Amino acid sequence: MLCVNAFSDASVRPAGRGGSEMNVRNALYAQSGGVTPVINVTAAALIETARQQPQAIGKVYAARNGIVGVLREQLYDTSCLQDADLQRLKQTPGGIFGSCRFKLGDFNSHQAQYERLMEVLKAHEIGYFFYNGGGDSADTALKVSQLGEKTGYPVTCIAVPKTIDNDLPVTDNSPGFASAAKYVAVSTLEASLDVAAMAESSTRVFIFEVMGRHTGWLAASSMVVRQQSGDPPHVILMPERRFDETAFLRKVKQVVDRVGYCTVVASEGIRDTDGQFLSEQPMLDAFGHPQLGGVAPVLARMVREKLGLKNHWAVADYLQRSARHIASSVDVDQATAVGRAAVELALAGHNAVMPVIRRLEGAPYRWEIGHAPLAQIANVEQPVPDAFISDDGMDVTETAREYFLPLIEGEAYPDYEQGLPRYLRLDCPLVPRRLPEYDQD
Amino acid sequence: MLCVNAFSDASVRPAGRGGSEMNVRNALYAQSGGVTPVINVTAAALIETARQQPQAIGKVYAARNGIVGVLREQLYDTSCLQDADLQRLKQTPGGIFGSCRFKLGDFNSHQAQYERLMEVLKAHEIGYFFYNGGGDSADTALKVSQLGEKTGYPVTCIAVPKTIDNDLPVTDNSPGFASAAKYVAVSTLEASLDVAAMAESSTRVFIFEVMGRHTGWLAASSMVVRQQSGDPPHVILMPERRFDETAFLRKVKQVVDRVGYCTVVASEGIRDTDGQFLSEQPMLDAFGHPQLGGVAPVLARMVREKLGLKNHWAVADYLQRSARHIASSVDVDQATAVGRAAVELALAGHNAVMPVIRRLEGAPYRWEIGHAPLAQIANVEQPVPDAFISDDGMDVTETAREYFLPLIEGEAYPDYEQGLPRYLRLDCPLVPRRLPEYDQD
Repeated sequence: MLCVNAFSDASVRPAGRGGSEMNVRNALYAQSGGVTPVINVTAAALIETARQQPQAIGKVYAARNGIVGVLREQLYDTSCLQDADLQRLKQTPGGIFGSCRFKLGDFNSHQAQYERLMEVLKAHEIGYFFYNGGGDSADTALKVSQLGEKTGYPVTCIAVPKTIDNDLPVTDNSPGFASAAKYVAVSTLEASLDVAAMAESSTRVFIFEVMGRHTGWLAASSMVVRQQSGDPPHVILMPERRFDETAFLRKVKQVVDRVGYCTVVASEGIRDTDGQFLSEQPMLDAFGHPQLGGVAPVLARMVREKLGLKNHWAVADYLQRSARHIASSVDVDQATAVGRAAVELALAGHNAVMPVIRRLEGAPYRWEIGHAPLAQIANVEQPVPDAFISDDGMDVTETAREYFLPLIEGEAYPDYEQGLPRYLRLDCPLVPRRLPEYDQD
Repeated sequence: MLCVNAFSDASVRPAGRGGSEMNVRNALYAQSGGVTPVINVTAAALIETARQQPQAIGKVYAARNGIVGVLREQLYDTSCLQDADLQRLKQTPGGIFGSCRFKLGDFNSHQAQYERLMEVLKAHEIGYFFYNGGGDSADTALKVSQLGEKTGYPVTCIAVPKTIDNDLPVTDNSPGFASAAKYVAVSTLEASLDVAAMAESSTRVFIFEVMGRHTGWLAASSMVVRQQSGDPPHVILMPERRFDETAFLRKVKQVVDRVGYCTVVASEGIRDTDGQFLSEQPMLDAFGHPQLGGVAPVLARMVREKLGLKNHWAVADYLQRSARHIASSVDVDQATAVGRAAVELALAGHNAVMPVIRRLEGAPYRWEIGHAPLAQIANVEQPVPDAFISDDGMDVTETAREYFLPLIEGEAYPDYEQGLPRYLRLDCPLVPRRLPEYDQD
């Protein structure tokens, strides 16, 4: 593995006059969207790198709860974090500063929002805005950069990638995905050993629901567990293909007859042939109220009712998104690299870009950091490629192994104390307000 | 931590004539009931110890799928496992020889079953029967010992404890529980960091369903995560107390108001005030068919409908029972000790006993191995003690920390290769049959 910073000359801000003459401006970092096992690794690397550039960067602030905290002027001064804290932060899942699900509105219809944003940036002399998130968050970073251009306020905006969904375009993979994939793979392997041991007189089918509302990357990654014919997972269901109940049940039956048991890994976002989410199949409670459930119980019901097979099901939900205890060390390295690159790109004069991971040709796996304009990233979703999906639409081809396997390489265990990981607890006060309260979000 | 083998004189077989004059007899080991992350550790330790006693123990057979495999005369000769295989087996979850859910019938009404059992024991000259399981399995071992007495066939029967449910009596804890508890604790901590990061604009309540049909030990163990007021888990639901919806919702609301989010850890086996399992609440699908689901989606529905709070839920199911990747090293040590003690008890002339873990007085945590007669173990369930349960019945008291915390101490990671644990794949042929086929189970 090799990590090279390879920045091309595109997207360099015309106003850039070279490092030595730069003004010192403050930086603002924020976390957005669903968190990952390693988003805090990126945060720590970014803060560390920014601290090494006192000629350009003054304070490094972090917004509480993403862009919502910017609007509310809820900012932490990250100088509260000592070096030892940053090392511990690199081992801590969740989003240490808080995250949000919040998209900025349209420029014309939400003028007050943008005016407030500008007031906060000005009040705290923010010259660098780093937004750590997925496709929606790239949209936010792009809008802030456009706001800067419109108003003539000089702010360098860099989106920093993270998403366990792995659905960002341009980048070969997204920080956070590999650790979640490692969790999914190890869990699929372990639970399958359990089912295999019980299948003779008990459970025959195990259904494992993983995240992926629109794309099936996490479910697909479970294919790495398979080493020989008959190995789990036996069925992989992804939103990229419509779910056909008859074909699904036929396949499960065939696998049970042949192997003795069947492991199914299903994305939460699979839809039936009518385009309806399986997880939103109308279920009524005893009082006739409609219920929404997960995909796993719906599939379990089919297997039980139509095939008469005893089954078990698990829903990983947030566990897969926060499982720092089984993080991939490649993921930790890449999360570090994008955090560092975000600062380096900003100081090299780039604006409205995102650092991306580029896979280099050939084996063994090597990667480098490049960058891409946010306009290519924002709101674009990258599905699992057709070449990775089997003809029957319910499995992943061997072609995909070369893509997935290097990503889950290496174990980056956190430190433990008395049997539990020593995760960092944030203990920083908010920076005193300079503006009136904001309550319009 | 200290491990002492301290065998008293009770239960010594009157026919015992001392080691030097013993006949060499074969041993039969089998796994039963739900598997654990460390039942294979016990298997490996037992096989290793038996191999060191060639003056008493000849072949060490292992039944395929527990007592079912004994009846079917499906036996592995464990000499197929090299020393390196046994080392790898100690790192492998699931039940390597296959397990079963099968209880022997009553002596009088199932004579053919017992006759068959005796034929198999005789045909393979089995003098030692080791049955590795929970309370039901102790019942099987007890019945086999009684069969030996009735028929005058000399067979020493030792039950070897394992259950993630921790509901075996006499023993201070059961091998398998501590690793599952470590998984539950780490998962509760990690997922709670995720919820805490998202709570401002998204998920407010996280519900984590863990195993425990009749007892709440695993749910209770999640209390170790809490270090200060406001820390998760905020609500712990155990089958030892009836579930009161109104009180539950009031508590969740109070926690969300005070802390900003709420983590609930729920045992699968909780029942409402009428004694009905929550997981069996009648739900109807669109066609009016009744549905069974887990507890987590039922609680999630209450929180959503009655409190209007966005929530997420996870069901760990088999993941918690097979998570060797996050095993407790105390658990690995104890699983080793009971495997070794099983052989030592047998050779010391004990019969119809189970090795048990005894906690020694004082701090730091120390334990030793003792033994108890199977009649005290079989079919008895040990609930979470009243002193561990809070007055409102929805939390665990600080008193419990001293019990749980030492059990999850230490990480016993498996070896990895290309990003995945190197779990053992059994590659042994079955021993040639000496009896006609059996198809009456």
